[in-house]
Amino acid sequence: MQKEHLALAVDFIEDLLSKGKYAVVREQMVDMEPADVALLLSEFPEDRLPILFRLLPKELAAETFVEMDNDQQELLIRSFSDTELQEVLDEMYLDDTVDLIEEMPASVVHRILRHCDPESRRTINELMKYPEDSAGSIMTTEFVSLTADMTVEDAFKRIRRTGIDKETIYLCYVVNDSRVLIGLVSVRTLLLSDEDDIISDIMESSIVCVNTLDDQETVSQMFSKYDFLAMPVVDQEHRLVGIITIDDAMDVMEAEATEDMEKMAAIMPSDKPYLKTSVLETFKARSPWLMLLMLSATFTGLIMTHFEDAMMACAILTSFIPMLSGTGGNSGTQASTAVIRALSLGEVRFRDTFRVIWKEARVALLCGVCLAAANFVKMMLVDRWMMHNPAVTIAVGAVVCLTLVCVVLCAKIVGCTLPILAEKLRLDPAVMASPFISTIVDALSLLIYFRIATALLGI
Amino acid sequence: MQKEHLALAVDFIEDLLSKGKYAVVREQMVDMEPADVALLLSEFPEDRLPILFRLLPKELAAETFVEMDNDQQELLIRSFSDTELQEVLDEMYLDDTVDLIEEMPASVVHRILRHCDPESRRTINELMKYPEDSAGSIMTTEFVSLTADMTVEDAFKRIRRTGIDKETIYLCYVVNDSRVLIGLVSVRTLLLSDEDDIISDIMESSIVCVNTLDDQETVSQMFSKYDFLAMPVVDQEHRLVGIITIDDAMDVMEAEATEDMEKMAAIMPSDKPYLKTSVLETFKARSPWLMLLMLSATFTGLIMTHFEDAMMACAILTSFIPMLSGTGGNSGTQASTAVIRALSLGEVRFRDTFRVIWKEARVALLCGVCLAAANFVKMMLVDRWMMHNPAVTIAVGAVVCLTLVCVVLCAKIVGCTLPILAEKLRLDPAVMASPFISTIVDALSLLIYFRIATALLGI
Repeated sequence: MQKEHLALAVDFIEDLLSKGKYAVVREQMVDMEPADVALLLSEFPEDRLPILFRLLPKELAAETFVEMDNDQQELLIRSFSDTELQEVLDEMYLDDTVDLIEEMPASVVHRILRHCDPESRRTINELMKYPEDSAGSIMTTEFVSLTADMTVEDAFKRIRRTGIDKETIYLCYVVNDSRVLIGLVSVRTLLLSDEDDIISDIMESSIVCVNTLDDQETVSQMFSKYDFLAMPVVDQEHRLVGIITIDDAMDVMEAEATEDMEKMAAIMPSDKPYLKTSVLETFKARSPWLMLLMLSATFTGLIMTHFEDAMMACAILTSFIPMLSGTGGNSGTQASTAVIRALSLGEVRFRDTFRVIWKEARVALLCGVCLAAANFVKMMLVDRWMMHNPAVTIAVGAVVCLTLVCVVLCAKIVGCTLPILAEKLRLDPAVMASPFISTIVDALSLLIYFRIATALLGI
Repeated sequence: MQKEHLALAVDFIEDLLSKGKYAVVREQMVDMEPADVALLLSEFPEDRLPILFRLLPKELAAETFVEMDNDQQELLIRSFSDTELQEVLDEMYLDDTVDLIEEMPASVVHRILRHCDPESRRTINELMKYPEDSAGSIMTTEFVSLTADMTVEDAFKRIRRTGIDKETIYLCYVVNDSRVLIGLVSVRTLLLSDEDDIISDIMESSIVCVNTLDDQETVSQMFSKYDFLAMPVVDQEHRLVGIITIDDAMDVMEAEATEDMEKMAAIMPSDKPYLKTSVLETFKARSPWLMLLMLSATFTGLIMTHFEDAMMACAILTSFIPMLSGTGGNSGTQASTAVIRALSLGEVRFRDTFRVIWKEARVALLCGVCLAAANFVKMMLVDRWMMHNPAVTIAVGAVVCLTLVCVVLCAKIVGCTLPILAEKLRLDPAVMASPFISTIVDALSLLIYFRIATALLGI
């Protein structure tokens, strides 16, 4: 649904509701996608929510419910009768129920669990034991399993009988008596086979699968590498316990990219959308890194105090400090971002360290020399000639430009090395991004600047 | 395949090859996933590539070919006989062939087109006309289409007859005589229906689809919103011309996240993996932004020259400049990154501008006050007491800390406003990230610092 249509639709439905034309409202919503209905409902005041929700047909209601914000879900559950809650829960997939339970307050969780049948409750409890961000925590237990001795006809019968409750029917997994995963057969293969073919003859027996404890980021990388629709999840004994579908993997990929960007901007990652996060939560996510980086800038302060005499002797030098540290920071950020992304996509590994450094060093020299040349011209033309500043001598220009080359070189090498080291030390490389690199490069560039200045200008 | 296993596998196969045991090598590879075979082959020296590739069964060979790097694809095509090329092309989906053609040099393209049948050649030419990054450029034309008057039995017959060449058979599209898209039916629905049900009775007729000219980023956002397996692509007359499958949408999502991160680090985006990009290409992608940002740091230089007297009167002030501009830059980066990501995920829109600013202002005040308090304690304890620096007076501390609060406030507001403005002006918000914000905040923080210093210290 287009954003501009949303406001119109809200007014239109509000009008219908006030006139009591509920059947027309229902008709409007019945053909919409669940995600769109959820978006639409989120635009109404809270007291309208239960009435609108009750207008939806049962299946659409459950699908819409899954797409809603946690606040709205909680509001709805509190307004539900026991029968209504039961109906929604019956239509939901178990992995969605688990997600819901993880976000709701204890009283609501209690009520939800009371309305699940014992079998589901057992599975939900199993699923909730897996560590956060593990494959087990995002898998669903509702998949189609077949046995190797079935015929294609049996398989279709089974899919028709049980498929309606399964998250995907297009990939069926073949297990033996101990529930060990032994094969995979797609509905495509089934459709293109004869009715009396035996599953063991047509199934694929070398299967890529993940372990319940594998990291969800690994899982989403495997999806983007192998182009699967679903991935089987097995336990330590290679028994099939669940599957992860590609739409869930896509959500993981999106969340992981957001998390990387947040870490790269020195923000502690959170799961909530920007406008739903309270000021206090945002403050808590941002201030620790700001504090740490501010305090580590103490070193740059010390360096400047140390070279106070040199600065006093040649005051014009100070005015180039922001440009030098800015350029250093930007150069370092470029290198670290490129390497962090390459690491997270699996393009670069630890053994490539020297290739990476060698590459960055050459790029840095090229960049440094170009920047220095441009800067020299700018200093002579703008600062000396146009602004009539006699303090900007050729010697000062040489100091600044030489520093520039060294700073870019250092920044790029620091920027590309730290993320790889972090990965090797099993830290998240994304932390070694812009703010962190800038702080280190700031100190480095001041040291280089003053060393070169004292040496060349004899101060 | 685990990274550590790769080196072992390479040695093992190299050993088998040197002993001439080709059948064993083939057996090793035949059960592997195409993406893994491609990874494995990329580890061998170039002259081994053709022989290894020829050992693969026909279908696996084509699937592996699609997963390879452009350099290796070119090498292989040049070593192919005409029959071999024909075989690989026959097995490939047309959208993959188009991708291949776009990356190959003219002589290779010529040879590829000569080996396509006239029908495919016509489609390839059609597909290549769509603008880069449009839905048309990533769609495939190989989908299953049905007509509304078919029965479920007819539909299955059609799927069985034509499905082998289609990229997905799980979603079938219903078109009328003018090829206008009128419905959608999934294989799941077909399997759960009776054989003589009519398609028009069971199809979904309200379908979310995209236009050939829509941006690929919009398409991938729709996939993550609606959890579809495939999305139909229609032309201006609503005629069905192709579909986009979820695995291609996932690739787009990954590429767009990389592009955003690159822009946020002031790198011009490129499609190539990090280690495959030459030094010169990397230099070209990075130097323009570095140059622009360096030259805009001229303003900070001018501000510092302007306040030279104040600096001379109270030299200690200078040593806090890196800390102030660093903290300002980091605060701005946090706000801009959070807003850029929220914009790209559709969580924030232009009409939310004031909510965003109000939120950031409150977060900034909290952060600023905390940082200022910590900094005051640090200045008094470390700089004055431990380092015995008598120049660090309470008045200087007050100037620095007051500046800190103002700088964080300005930085957060600039950081959150610029990306939203960029989006409104139809620029990419990602450009308004860390390096750009830091440069602006640098100048702002110097202005604030010297204004406050001259006012409070009377210099």
